[in-house]
Amino acid sequence: MAAPQFRQLRRVYGFDEVAIVPGDTTINPDQTNIDFKIEGFTFATPILASAMDAVTDVNFATLMSKLGGLAVLNLEGVQTRYDNPQEVLTEIAQASDAKVTLLLQKVYSQPIKENLVGERIQSIKKSGAVCAVSVTPANTKRLAPIAAEAKADIFVVQSTVTSARHISKSYRGLIFSELRPSMPMPIIVGNCVSYSACLELMRTGISGVLIGVGPGAACTTRQVLGVGVPQVTATMDCAAARDEYLRESGRYVPIITDGGIGNGGDLCKAFASGADAVMLGSILAQAKEAPGLGYHWGMANPHPALPRGTRIKVGTTGTLEQILFGPASVTDGSQNLVGALRTAMGICGVPTIQEMHRVEIVIAPAITTEGKSWQLLHPSH
Amino acid sequence: MAAPQFRQLRRVYGFDEVAIVPGDTTINPDQTNIDFKIEGFTFATPILASAMDAVTDVNFATLMSKLGGLAVLNLEGVQTRYDNPQEVLTEIAQASDAKVTLLLQKVYSQPIKENLVGERIQSIKKSGAVCAVSVTPANTKRLAPIAAEAKADIFVVQSTVTSARHISKSYRGLIFSELRPSMPMPIIVGNCVSYSACLELMRTGISGVLIGVGPGAACTTRQVLGVGVPQVTATMDCAAARDEYLRESGRYVPIITDGGIGNGGDLCKAFASGADAVMLGSILAQAKEAPGLGYHWGMANPHPALPRGTRIKVGTTGTLEQILFGPASVTDGSQNLVGALRTAMGICGVPTIQEMHRVEIVIAPAITTEGKSWQLLHPSH
Amino acid sequence: MAAPQFRQLRRVYGFDEVAIVPGDTTINPDQTNIDFKIEGFTFATPILASAMDAVTDVNFATLMSKLGGLAVLNLEGVQTRYDNPQEVLTEIAQASDAKVTLLLQKVYSQPIKENLVGERIQSIKKSGAVCAVSVTPANTKRLAPIAAEAKADIFVVQSTVTSARHISKSYRGLIFSELRPSMPMPIIVGNCVSYSACLELMRTGISGVLIGVGPGAACTTRQVLGVGVPQVTATMDCAAARDEYLRESGRYVPIITDGGIGNGGDLCKAFASGADAVMLGSILAQAKEAPGLGYHWGMANPHPALPRGTRIKVGTTGTLEQILFGPASVTDGSQNLVGALRTAMGICGVPTIQEMHRVEIVIAPAITTEGKSWQLLHPSH
Amino acid sequence: MAAPQFRQLRRVYGFDEVAIVPGDTTINPDQTNIDFKIEGFTFATPILASAMDAVTDVNFATLMSKLGGLAVLNLEGVQTRYDNPQEVLTEIAQASDAKVTLLLQKVYSQPIKENLVGERIQSIKKSGAVCAVSVTPANTKRLAPIAAEAKADIFVVQSTVTSARHISKSYRGLIFSELRPSMPMPIIVGNCVSYSACLELMRTGISGVLIGVGPGAACTTRQVLGVGVPQVTATMDCAAARDEYLRESGRYVPIITDGGIGNGGDLCKAFASGADAVMLGSILAQAKEAPGLGYHWGMANPHPALPRGTRIKVGTTGTLEQILFGPASVTDGSQNLVGALRTAMGICGVPTIQEMHRVEIVIAPAITTEGKSWQLLHPSH
Repeated sequence: MAAPQFRQLRRVYGFDEVAIVPGDTTINPDQTNIDFKIEGFTFATPILASAMDAVTDVNFATLMSKLGGLAVLNLEGVQTRYDNPQEVLTEIAQASDAKVTLLLQKVYSQPIKENLVGERIQSIKKSGAVCAVSVTPANTKRLAPIAAEAKADIFVVQSTVTSARHISKSYRGLIFSELRPSMPMPIIVGNCVSYSACLELMRTGISGVLIGVGPGAACTTRQVLGVGVPQVTATMDCAAARDEYLRESGRYVPIITDGGIGNGGDLCKAFASGADAVMLGSILAQAKEAPGLGYHWGMANPHPALPRGTRIKVGTTGTLEQILFGPASVTDGSQNLVGALRTAMGICGVPTIQEMHRVEIVIAPAITTEGKSWQLLHPSH
Repeated sequence: MAAPQFRQLRRVYGFDEVAIVPGDTTINPDQTNIDFKIEGFTFATPILASAMDAVTDVNFATLMSKLGGLAVLNLEGVQTRYDNPQEVLTEIAQASDAKVTLLLQKVYSQPIKENLVGERIQSIKKSGAVCAVSVTPANTKRLAPIAAEAKADIFVVQSTVTSARHISKSYRGLIFSELRPSMPMPIIVGNCVSYSACLELMRTGISGVLIGVGPGAACTTRQVLGVGVPQVTATMDCAAARDEYLRESGRYVPIITDGGIGNGGDLCKAFASGADAVMLGSILAQAKEAPGLGYHWGMANPHPALPRGTRIKVGTTGTLEQILFGPASVTDGSQNLVGALRTAMGICGVPTIQEMHRVEIVIAPAITTEGKSWQLLHPSH
Repeated sequence: MAAPQFRQLRRVYGFDEVAIVPGDTTINPDQTNIDFKIEGFTFATPILASAMDAVTDVNFATLMSKLGGLAVLNLEGVQTRYDNPQEVLTEIAQASDAKVTLLLQKVYSQPIKENLVGERIQSIKKSGAVCAVSVTPANTKRLAPIAAEAKADIFVVQSTVTSARHISKSYRGLIFSELRPSMPMPIIVGNCVSYSACLELMRTGISGVLIGVGPGAACTTRQVLGVGVPQVTATMDCAAARDEYLRESGRYVPIITDGGIGNGGDLCKAFASGADAVMLGSILAQAKEAPGLGYHWGMANPHPALPRGTRIKVGTTGTLEQILFGPASVTDGSQNLVGALRTAMGICGVPTIQEMHRVEIVIAPAITTEGKSWQLLHPSH
Repeated sequence: MAAPQFRQLRRVYGFDEVAIVPGDTTINPDQTNIDFKIEGFTFATPILASAMDAVTDVNFATLMSKLGGLAVLNLEGVQTRYDNPQEVLTEIAQASDAKVTLLLQKVYSQPIKENLVGERIQSIKKSGAVCAVSVTPANTKRLAPIAAEAKADIFVVQSTVTSARHISKSYRGLIFSELRPSMPMPIIVGNCVSYSACLELMRTGISGVLIGVGPGAACTTRQVLGVGVPQVTATMDCAAARDEYLRESGRYVPIITDGGIGNGGDLCKAFASGADAVMLGSILAQAKEAPGLGYHWGMANPHPALPRGTRIKVGTTGTLEQILFGPASVTDGSQNLVGALRTAMGICGVPTIQEMHRVEIVIAPAITTEGKSWQLLHPSH
């Protein structure tokens, strides 16, 4: 019989499968500019701290802002459910592996206290820091006005997958084109991973897009749901959407690669794939100042019916400043991330992030193993 | 010398190599319809329990039916060879690894008692459940009349590979086009993995096809015989056969992906590849109500001359209801499978299984490892 | 600057990367014909035992012949260097890992005794078995006349890589077209892995070709020299050479896939790739009757300056008859190889090896892992 | 919407992913010529020892030259910072894993003593050896005149990535076309990995190019920066640049594959990919005469802010002569590298390195695992 037309599947790539090709010219790392701009804000450090309870609390957000970056406080986590969140965080850190999922489900079943939402924002603002907060689409209508009133600087709407159009019978879905005019600050929305979904989100008028479904170190979405696109392709496709949207609208909407970045190499590859900034979770949870006390967990973990995350032990390896700017005391690429980015840009001969978007990336799975049998046989961690 | 024309090999894919791309729109999971229909029967839960002795006995079949799914009782297993199968199942569970193959060969060398065939079917029917039973092609002529007389609802003919035409000198092969008119109930046949083999089976008039050769957790067919096609491609190709057969005949013959599904992610990928339902073994053997007592083994394992299966310890992790509908107490995707399917469909913005068949799948081997070094270094099981 | 023309590399495949697709029809295994023919000899079992000291001695050759196959006695191993080889074999089996390479270098530095060459051949002949013996190209001129005089039935000239033309200043290279007329029996030559090298060998008039460079379980040629082609592609290419040679000469020269076959699945894939027979080493070294006493080593291992093999412990798992014909007491595919081949041919619906050469093979790396996480986490060996 | 044009990524390859195809003819290994020539110098052994402190000191350089190869002394390592480097090397070898990075950072923070630069060179020259020394681009202007005055024979300028044009505001970048006329000896520059970067370096008039970014056994550049190209593709592309430069200039500039070579197989593949010589680190650090005392570390390891290397334990396995020429006492390909190269060339039927550049290489990831389950389950190291 005649050969039927089978489905053609596209091959997509993650960080470990690619490498950056050095440039034909090189430049001094100290001559690189890595500013990240989003609607009037400029950050000297193009790194965001995840809206996760093991990473961002009021103190961490303050410190991150001082260091030129931006931390996002989750308005639906322990910080707004508990007057004394540190107590709960300690309990989570001390729970056994067997009991932690149940504990997290219990901890996050407590109601969000609206007064705490305002308080946390004001504490960050009082320190002089730029204050970014996040909510899920389902809670946006309720929490957005409180955040606006407390004068949060940047508003993030984030769920595993957020689309421009959500269909629901029981309630009227969140319409970003309606939310936008009602909020006085930049709005970042996420997460998405495809060209078309990203483009549709940008067309709603929002200010930035988070890229990534399931790559987080503590996330098991890909195992539980089978859904996701690895970060290199996701970032490239969404960067193509950003460029297309720029052509059609004249407006540049930055994309932020969120999740899956475990070392400086991954971070550099995210920028080379087209990211304007990156959002980090587990790598920042290793900071001395992180509220997770050496542990990290996904915000989809406490889901009462379908938990999609695990608590992982990341340890505490250094100060946030060391993680961002060094000097690194380790050689695995988890410290001095900014130094790594500038060095890679120097090696590629590109003075700006915009030019970093156009360096050559090759598919090179051998990159992680070639010549490394000694290291692989005697791993340091 | 001139370059010769070498054989071209097609690349085929399994669950771990692909991922589902989220949609441009999303919908609420509770607005999805996941009904599975086969010749007059409608199942609210598109999940079948394998015709394996560690999974399906009379009680399990009854419970599965109550929960909206369908369990298939193997008419050639311990349930029809022993008056008291539980005794034998306990013995299997307690055997050492070294002795279990020999024990299984002995256990399954006992003859099938025809009176038990009828009794087991009637016990299931009496409970009000839909009763499905399975036989091998070689025993079909002998056991089909008994199953029909006992009023089994659905009849399954299953072997490692079943084709529309089996050539044998010693006996006249089973002709499905002749079997069909003699049986009053739907007939499901399997297993197959290719477009052409599936299409030929459908043309014999049967009601459904099982897809999968060798992916079962306890199966070593691929190692012993080298035969098989990974489940994503197998399902896609057979879905193409189903669609072609629908075009030529106007009749929709559902396909059921059988084997290799270890978590919700795999299950969602099976539907996205084109499955109308899935058949699960090891994942259901983990249910408290499963007869395998925390163990699982292949029905090709006890083969006297060429055993092709291993007994594996799967443990007991929760009730069948929890495995199907949650709430999940684990985060590895092995519980709340229906919730996972509905959530994935919501993320893809598709309200029906038919539309789920058309979501984008990408080749994404990185999906299982990207960002997961912490989990890989400290696996939970 | 203009993009230069870089080298294009061809992708080649090994056993673990491919799978056999079941047929649209199936046949009873007992209706398959698996005869292997080579210049007047017909073997009911298309399996050769390697010319390796851990596999073939006089007794093993006799038994293999009785079981329908063919064992090749190495005329440059311990059997012809020692009057009492069993003593030496025991010493090798008892040596520690640290000292075994040195011991092997010493053992094989003893001279070959020409009288033993004749004696061993006569012992095999006396038992009524078909007697095959092997020499290296360098020793062919010296040992071929002795083998001919002792009336060996089949003569094998084998080295890591043997080509139709070997260039040497110090001695006149072996010319197969000159050797052929001087020897009264079939000559098998190897090893080679490419279309052109195989075709050139066939054109010298020899009777069969061994396929495979470096895949042997105890061989480290690929690590030491970087040379080799995985067996699926090597077999396919050499099968293409065989077919081309048949077209140009009318003579069918069988090819024998030698090495890398670790279970029935690999064996079936070799035939599906085009092999007329297979040569097995480590899998037969597991026989109770094998002289290696549960150990196995490469014949390139004892090389005084550049050893390219390791001694491996394979254990003793059953009788040779069980390994070839079952009943299998294990489920990993290392026993009942003939049953596995017939079953796979039945599943593919092909009654002869010639038709087995044309079944569909797919590239399916997932085949070894899909659904097998339980087995991978708790491997049986 | 219309499908956008996404970025196309090129697939690149490392040693473990490829294999060399044997030739249609073969030649005797002792008839191969493996000379390496660079601007008037001819080396009988085409192997360079890395400019790394664990590999090359004065004695090692002397011995390497006697054995026909070339060792490069790093003018910025412990040999020129300490009057008694052996003391420091012992301290490094004895440091714990936890403290070694800090120790290395301290050790290498000592200033380079210019008098030692001259002394070390003279010691090597006095022994009659060919003396090669290396500096980084940043120190070239300062150290080049001293090296020239001390009559070093070959001058190497090496950093992780060195380009023909380095852009710096703070100092005037090193211009190779200006350096060249001022130095009386051949200049080797590196490292680079791409066609265009290599071609531009050659056009500056330098004498040889080092190929490889990040493959070194002790190097973590790829993890820290994400930058690099695996060695097979890097060598092939730079060989294409060499051939192009030969066409345009008539001058043959040899390329030296540096890093990632862990055994004879890798070494042979480097030559088959187009290398004129190879530079070895960890494999030579295993020599009894190596100054690293069984340890090895990267020269980017001691970086004060962004260390990109780890100290690895390689052990001491034999003399340098054994590693280069055998007899090998091990079977893993780490000894008798020259014998391996000549044997592989014999198998490929190529009498010269130039012809070795044109043998067929195939993409064959199976090469490292096919048939090797016994070895993989019971690795020797």
